[in-house]
Amino acid sequence: MPTQPSKDLLAVPNPHPGRDYTVTCDTPEFTCLCPLTGQPDFATVRISYVPDQALVELKSLKLYLWSFRNEGGFHEDMTNRILDDLVSAIVPRRITVVTDWLVRGGIHTVVEASHPATP
Amino acid sequence: MPTQPSKDLLAVPNPHPGRDYTVTCDTPEFTCLCPLTGQPDFATVRISYVPDQALVELKSLKLYLWSFRNEGGFHEDMTNRILDDLVSAIVPRRITVVTDWLVRGGIHTVVEASHPATP
Amino acid sequence: MPTQPSKDLLAVPNPHPGRDYTVTCDTPEFTCLCPLTGQPDFATVRISYVPDQALVELKSLKLYLWSFRNEGGFHEDMTNRILDDLVSAIVPRRITVVTDWLVRGGIHTVVEASHPATP
Amino acid sequence: MPTQPSKDLLAVPNPHPGRDYTVTCDTPEFTCLCPLTGQPDFATVRISYVPDQALVELKSLKLYLWSFRNEGGFHEDMTNRILDDLVSAIVPRRITVVTDWLVRGGIHTVVEASHPATP
Amino acid sequence: MPTQPSKDLLAVPNPHPGRDYTVTCDTPEFTCLCPLTGQPDFATVRISYVPDQALVELKSLKLYLWSFRNEGGFHEDMTNRILDDLVSAIVPRRITVVTDWLVRGGIHTVVEASHPATP
Amino acid sequence: MPTQPSKDLLAVPNPHPGRDYTVTCDTPEFTCLCPLTGQPDFATVRISYVPDQALVELKSLKLYLWSFRNEGGFHEDMTNRILDDLVSAIVPRRITVVTDWLVRGGIHTVVEASHPATP
Amino acid sequence: MPTQPSKDLLAVPNPHPGRDYTVTCDTPEFTCLCPLTGQPDFATVRISYVPDQALVELKSLKLYLWSFRNEGGFHEDMTNRILDDLVSAIVPRRITVVTDWLVRGGIHTVVEASHPATP
Amino acid sequence: MPTQPSKDLLAVPNPHPGRDYTVTCDTPEFTCLCPLTGQPDFATVRISYVPDQALVELKSLKLYLWSFRNEGGFHEDMTNRILDDLVSAIVPRRITVVTDWLVRGGIHTVVEASHPATP
Amino acid sequence: MPTQPSKDLLAVPNPHPGRDYTVTCDTPEFTCLCPLTGQPDFATVRISYVPDQALVELKSLKLYLWSFRNEGGFHEDMTNRILDDLVSAIVPRRITVVTDWLVRGGIHTVVEASHPATP
Amino acid sequence: MPTQPSKDLLAVPNPHPGRDYTVTCDTPEFTCLCPLTGQPDFATVRISYVPDQALVELKSLKLYLWSFRNEGGFHEDMTNRILDDLVSAIVPRRITVVTDWLVRGGIHTVVEASHPATP
Repeated sequence: MPTQPSKDLLAVPNPHPGRDYTVTCDTPEFTCLCPLTGQPDFATVRISYVPDQALVELKSLKLYLWSFRNEGGFHEDMTNRILDDLVSAIVPRRITVVTDWLVRGGIHTVVEASHPATP
Repeated sequence: MPTQPSKDLLAVPNPHPGRDYTVTCDTPEFTCLCPLTGQPDFATVRISYVPDQALVELKSLKLYLWSFRNEGGFHEDMTNRILDDLVSAIVPRRITVVTDWLVRGGIHTVVEASHPATP
Repeated sequence: MPTQPSKDLLAVPNPHPGRDYTVTCDTPEFTCLCPLTGQPDFATVRISYVPDQALVELKSLKLYLWSFRNEGGFHEDMTNRILDDLVSAIVPRRITVVTDWLVRGGIHTVVEASHPATP
Repeated sequence: MPTQPSKDLLAVPNPHPGRDYTVTCDTPEFTCLCPLTGQPDFATVRISYVPDQALVELKSLKLYLWSFRNEGGFHEDMTNRILDDLVSAIVPRRITVVTDWLVRGGIHTVVEASHPATP
Repeated sequence: MPTQPSKDLLAVPNPHPGRDYTVTCDTPEFTCLCPLTGQPDFATVRISYVPDQALVELKSLKLYLWSFRNEGGFHEDMTNRILDDLVSAIVPRRITVVTDWLVRGGIHTVVEASHPATP
Repeated sequence: MPTQPSKDLLAVPNPHPGRDYTVTCDTPEFTCLCPLTGQPDFATVRISYVPDQALVELKSLKLYLWSFRNEGGFHEDMTNRILDDLVSAIVPRRITVVTDWLVRGGIHTVVEASHPATP
Repeated sequence: MPTQPSKDLLAVPNPHPGRDYTVTCDTPEFTCLCPLTGQPDFATVRISYVPDQALVELKSLKLYLWSFRNEGGFHEDMTNRILDDLVSAIVPRRITVVTDWLVRGGIHTVVEASHPATP
Repeated sequence: MPTQPSKDLLAVPNPHPGRDYTVTCDTPEFTCLCPLTGQPDFATVRISYVPDQALVELKSLKLYLWSFRNEGGFHEDMTNRILDDLVSAIVPRRITVVTDWLVRGGIHTVVEASHPATP
Repeated sequence: MPTQPSKDLLAVPNPHPGRDYTVTCDTPEFTCLCPLTGQPDFATVRISYVPDQALVELKSLKLYLWSFRNEGGFHEDMTNRILDDLVSAIVPRRITVVTDWLVRGGIHTVVEASHPATP
Repeated sequence: MPTQPSKDLLAVPNPHPGRDYTVTCDTPEFTCLCPLTGQPDFATVRISYVPDQALVELKSLKLYLWSFRNEGGFHEDMTNRILDDLVSAIVPRRITVVTDWLVRGGIHTVVEASHPATP
């Protein structure tokens, strides 16, 4: 099964679109590169959403997260980009993305973004 | 006591229908099959409800959950089907079903559905 | 001090009735009998209330909980009976009773009831 | 530094009275006597307040809590007395006192009181 | 990389100013001096904010927190000063600073301040 | 299945007597009476043994532990009696019984006895 | 990848046979049937071994554990059978199998067997 | 039951002197005074022993530990004195006393002494 | 500081070679590729050693672990290769390497290797 | 009490030199400087020893650990220097010093040294 990393998030039909319900996916297997130093960063990513017409297919989500392995990006930007990509792919009713980064410079950082944004 | 798995959920009378109160049942003993690969999936199931005229009988709930052992189903679909079956069987005032699945492809998934759906 | 189990809950005057405040008592030392099989059941009981004119006296609460040792009762019924008895004995402004039962048939059950019932 | 236990709580000026903010002090080092049996009771005390013009000075708080070492008092009464004393001493905008007592008669008790009382 | 402690907090542009989202930075590496005795105090600092036009640059935040190493200050004052400095530097939409101090005199203290202040 | 409490421990043949291996059974569902006051005591019981020709049958173990529900006994004596009964019933190569009792008089007690006794 | 459950454990060459080292594999995804009642049992399985000439291939181990899904067996027997099968398949220098079973009849059981047996 | 603190530890006959077994008693309810400042100190005490002809009676142990409430003593000395008193009272085969003290001056101290001393 | 991943482990002089002491370094920031599928694997690595004439320099250790980011390797092989590289670089008196891998196929794997090998 | 940091460790007489017993002191309040970058490092220090004729006085230990606040030193060297200083000051029968450092470069380091060295 040597599939490849890919930015293509696959949408599959939501079997219960008549009901608001919540799907949460989290993984500690996220790594990208620091845009300043080129060194690896590591994060746990948690995605929680209320689907409308589509669910995100789990394997494509794995390949999507893998696709950042050799890309650089600041913590805040990464989080919003993942959020934007998921909003485009499955157009959920509500969605929150949280990234929880391993310590850099003695500081532990967590970024949380939602769509629509919580007031 | 070699009883059999069964989709029949048994309703018993609620001894205190005059009061809204909450019953929560959870079990780590849920397993079904992946509809794509046929391989076993495992989940913890938590059911929390405010009964109206009926309670779900505990042993029938056990046999009901057992009945999925050889069935396939996606995580999101399973959760909503369990919710629908419980709503039909005991017609609760409010009910929430949460399924918390063991890791697949490095991703941990939780699905939560309620009736009536939380806005 | 060989006192006896008793259903008599003792009310003592609330020294600060002019203020809403909360008293929480919990104990893992609750056991009764299954009404179907006669076998012992075990639970942790948590009682949380805002007193009005009376507090429940702690030793009488212990003897009261002890009095269920040789009685049978379903989880949901037990919880509501304890709630009713406390409401009668001390007439609190608000009260919640939670019973958290050890696993039976692979299922862990928690029952929570309040007076006045939470909407 | 052999200072003495004292009921005098020292108020010091709040350096930022223009802003609502919260100070929380907790300690597991509280002991008093049971008014019925004379035996020691032990509790963790947590005080959380929004100061107005004054903060409570930390050392005087320590001496104040120490002053209960040889006094008797029921859990509910103790909690309200500590709350009243703090309200008198520093006149906070809001304050909550929680006392969490070690097990007596198999029962664990927690008392929580606020000023102004939460409705 | 022998950079120096500094009170200059560096603001960098927020790449997603169109959306309310939250950045949380926490570190157990904060130490300052007690203004009364000159002895070291230690705290965990947690900063959580919704950025407007600017983010706080992580390395400058580290150098900023380091700059308190040889300064004295009461817990409540320190917390409000850090809050004020961050508000000045990045003008966030909302921000909360929490300082959680190691035990002194048997008492554990936590201070939490927000801008705008929570009512 | 309304079976009765019983002191009869049932031995079943060990299917692998040619190998030393360990079976551990623990349960938080043990209660007996205090021989001084008649009040209930509660304990977690853990039994760990290397079988010789026999295993202890699980249901008979449950009924055996249940049989202490209305008996009095000191913690140390109870532990040794359970050990002696198990040694008589299944003649294990080695066995340890641990009883871990809920707090009485502010003191938490654990008793551990082995056969043959560890030197 | 719809592979099938199988009792065939695949041995692969140990790349470092010159050194004693330890490989530990554990999974909470083990389920079989109770030989008395036909109802499902669930366990966590932990295998720890020092390889000689062969390692156990991970995917074949997964399929092997899956093969018990519809088989009956007592806890003690299951554990020794898994141990025997692994000893036959990879002939390790030392190996321990632990099975940790979900509660039945209020009792939690763990079985541990080693080859060669620990004295 | 207003009994008094007392240094008299009561010995009761060991019902199973023919076997080496272990009794462990621990309590977080120990307080004494600092011999330098007169301020209260707090500790958890754990006593673990193999009895010979006598057990320590639990209530007398509680009164004994209470008797230190108004006495001063350094941590190391307290621990050895408790050990000596228990050795005198019940002449155990082996005994260990551990005292675990709440933080003073930022330092957490634990003292452990055994009789006969472990080499 | 955009340094590069490198297999060169830097040895620095041990300032206290006259004494056996232990240095432990662990990090959750290890990732490599599965040699079968090319997909990323993730592990926590723990290295514990008694130095002889040299210590491993921390930054070179970070760059060394980074160097596996785009390499494939089985869990058992990776662990032994890291061990061999460290033995070559700093010739320690004793060393243990543990790799703890995130779940694959429902199975959690840990590999532990030492030099000289523990018998 | 504005005492000053000092390298002078004060020895006080051991009140029970006839018995081997253990004193453990630990504190999370240790900070020094990195000798390469000048930036602060933070560690928890744990000291465990069997005293001979002397105990280390607790306040002098606090001032001693404080004295490293503005000194640079590598983790391994710091640990051995603290050990050497304690051996000189109180000449214990046995002593172990453990330093547990906050993460640098993604790596968590612990150093443990004993006197006499454990073989």
